[in-house]
Amino acid sequence: MTNVVAFGGGHGLATILRGLRLLRDPLGLDITAVVTVGDNGGSSGRLRAERGGLPPGDLRQALAALIDPDDQVGVAAAGVLQYRFGGAAPLAGHAMGNLLLCALMEQSGDPVAALELAGTLMRAGGRVLPMSRTPVDIEATVRGADPGRPGDVLAVRGQHAVAVTPGEVLSVRLAPPRPQACAEAVEAVRAADWLLFGPGSWYTSVIPHLLVPQLAEAIMASPAQRLVTLNLRAEDETSGLSLPDHLRALGRYLPGLRADVVLADVNAIGDPAGLRVAAESLGARVVSAAVAVADGSPRHNPDALAQALRSVLATQPAPEQAATVQDQEPIGQKAPAR
Amino acid sequence: MTNVVAFGGGHGLATILRGLRLLRDPLGLDITAVVTVGDNGGSSGRLRAERGGLPPGDLRQALAALIDPDDQVGVAAAGVLQYRFGGAAPLAGHAMGNLLLCALMEQSGDPVAALELAGTLMRAGGRVLPMSRTPVDIEATVRGADPGRPGDVLAVRGQHAVAVTPGEVLSVRLAPPRPQACAEAVEAVRAADWLLFGPGSWYTSVIPHLLVPQLAEAIMASPAQRLVTLNLRAEDETSGLSLPDHLRALGRYLPGLRADVVLADVNAIGDPAGLRVAAESLGARVVSAAVAVADGSPRHNPDALAQALRSVLATQPAPEQAATVQDQEPIGQKAPAR
Repeated sequence: MTNVVAFGGGHGLATILRGLRLLRDPLGLDITAVVTVGDNGGSSGRLRAERGGLPPGDLRQALAALIDPDDQVGVAAAGVLQYRFGGAAPLAGHAMGNLLLCALMEQSGDPVAALELAGTLMRAGGRVLPMSRTPVDIEATVRGADPGRPGDVLAVRGQHAVAVTPGEVLSVRLAPPRPQACAEAVEAVRAADWLLFGPGSWYTSVIPHLLVPQLAEAIMASPAQRLVTLNLRAEDETSGLSLPDHLRALGRYLPGLRADVVLADVNAIGDPAGLRVAAESLGARVVSAAVAVADGSPRHNPDALAQALRSVLATQPAPEQAATVQDQEPIGQKAPAR
Repeated sequence: MTNVVAFGGGHGLATILRGLRLLRDPLGLDITAVVTVGDNGGSSGRLRAERGGLPPGDLRQALAALIDPDDQVGVAAAGVLQYRFGGAAPLAGHAMGNLLLCALMEQSGDPVAALELAGTLMRAGGRVLPMSRTPVDIEATVRGADPGRPGDVLAVRGQHAVAVTPGEVLSVRLAPPRPQACAEAVEAVRAADWLLFGPGSWYTSVIPHLLVPQLAEAIMASPAQRLVTLNLRAEDETSGLSLPDHLRALGRYLPGLRADVVLADVNAIGDPAGLRVAAESLGARVVSAAVAVADGSPRHNPDALAQALRSVLATQPAPEQAATVQDQEPIGQKAPAR
């Protein structure tokens, strides 16, 4: 059993989880998704504001992505999780799975227990955990957030506002600034063989994990190999950021972060040498593969991603790393697979 | 396998389904609940008014009642189906399972398919069907509906208003008056070994089934044995109605209805001779048993009810009835058990 922990939120995380789900049985993966809890837009934002719990949307998407696409009932379950009420208020716009997770979290009082039950009922083939049991806000310092005053540097508050800012994100932070990590997520990192970062909204879905102190410590201490999967193109919040910039941002927010593999779509790499240098600064090699959908839109193809992940995850740690692993945590004492 | 079809709605139906669920494995029961679709109060009423589909509350209660009480995940699933949002609008007051059923019905466009998926995901140990695929309204002619004018005879519209009327219900009807029956419910009646009526709100949960023409025809034509389970005490809508009156009401709304067994709580029978006469007018014998909870409140104890049902359902049809069965539908041509 190979323990894989994927960090992210929203569509990007769901994409890599779909790829991992395809590999779960062939490779014997135990999959844990660790999900940002900063969303404040849409259905999640309304529920968070009205009910006060974790924003459920990214958790829901991760659950749905972990359902076996060959299980007919599971696919129907994913369909209803993702079903979005149309029509009129007050239900219009809510994803059904958001309401379900909201109810489960309110009823049990514990998001981890709620997600475990949801995963069982909905036949998810892996575990979904929040990065923190309490919601956070994402704030950024942005140059040109107001297009009318392009030189001004302003604070932008809220994940949604940061994600769609037309300005240049100079820095990002959490509020409150040092949230308590979800203990089960820390434990999953400790037991991981692989830690996966990205794809996804870099500042609002990937980097927030590095800003949770106990999670950052566990990541730094973990003997697991690490894969960074890069996006297919820049989003609003990362406009102007090249792929090497994405890698440098990781090192900026978690100084000393080491990686083993950087996976990039072969057609998205503009500057191979620049990317290689940035990857090497994390200690990683670049694996390039055709992982986008065929129609040219900037979305990963889960099958192609699975194929690329298959060879990456089969990689053994380099000898000197393996020795380090051995030093830190003898194999015989590793946490048993769940 | 013994095919049992239980008609009702709300708490009364849930009660007998809980009893049946306990007997499912020991007796080899295939359980189908056929549920009224006239509710217009509370969470169901709001959803029905806002979204236009079937009122989900009674369907939800039936599903939850069919979950194995010894299945830990199932019990948790029932808990979330029954979870009622507190706090503030717009979710306050909605049962989670109502929202789930609403979403499933909207998404699939077919309440039967929606209920089948819900039953699978929530681990229900039986099937829940609506009596009709389209919602109905329940209307009554009531003397003294307005306490200030006790002699006046007024029309009362809506299941909720009828259920809580302080007046005397003179007659009850559906609007529209001849709804199309759910074909699967008709089929279940045809394949049934037992048809179960009550307990429950007599005018608003039990009798409505008899007012759906195709269902009434199927009930009349069915060779199944029939059990009528009486209530423990009169409700608002049946104030003034004795237990024999309850039985006479069945015959009034479905003339010629035959029954085999009338099950009454031993402590609720005020007039044993009167009850026996009313039962015999349907062709039924009275079985009396202690089936109420011990604390004196007018609720059935599912375990005690199961014990009483166990001996009732073990009853073989009387010889002449068995012959009739044989005449109408040779055993070898019965629909296979699901």
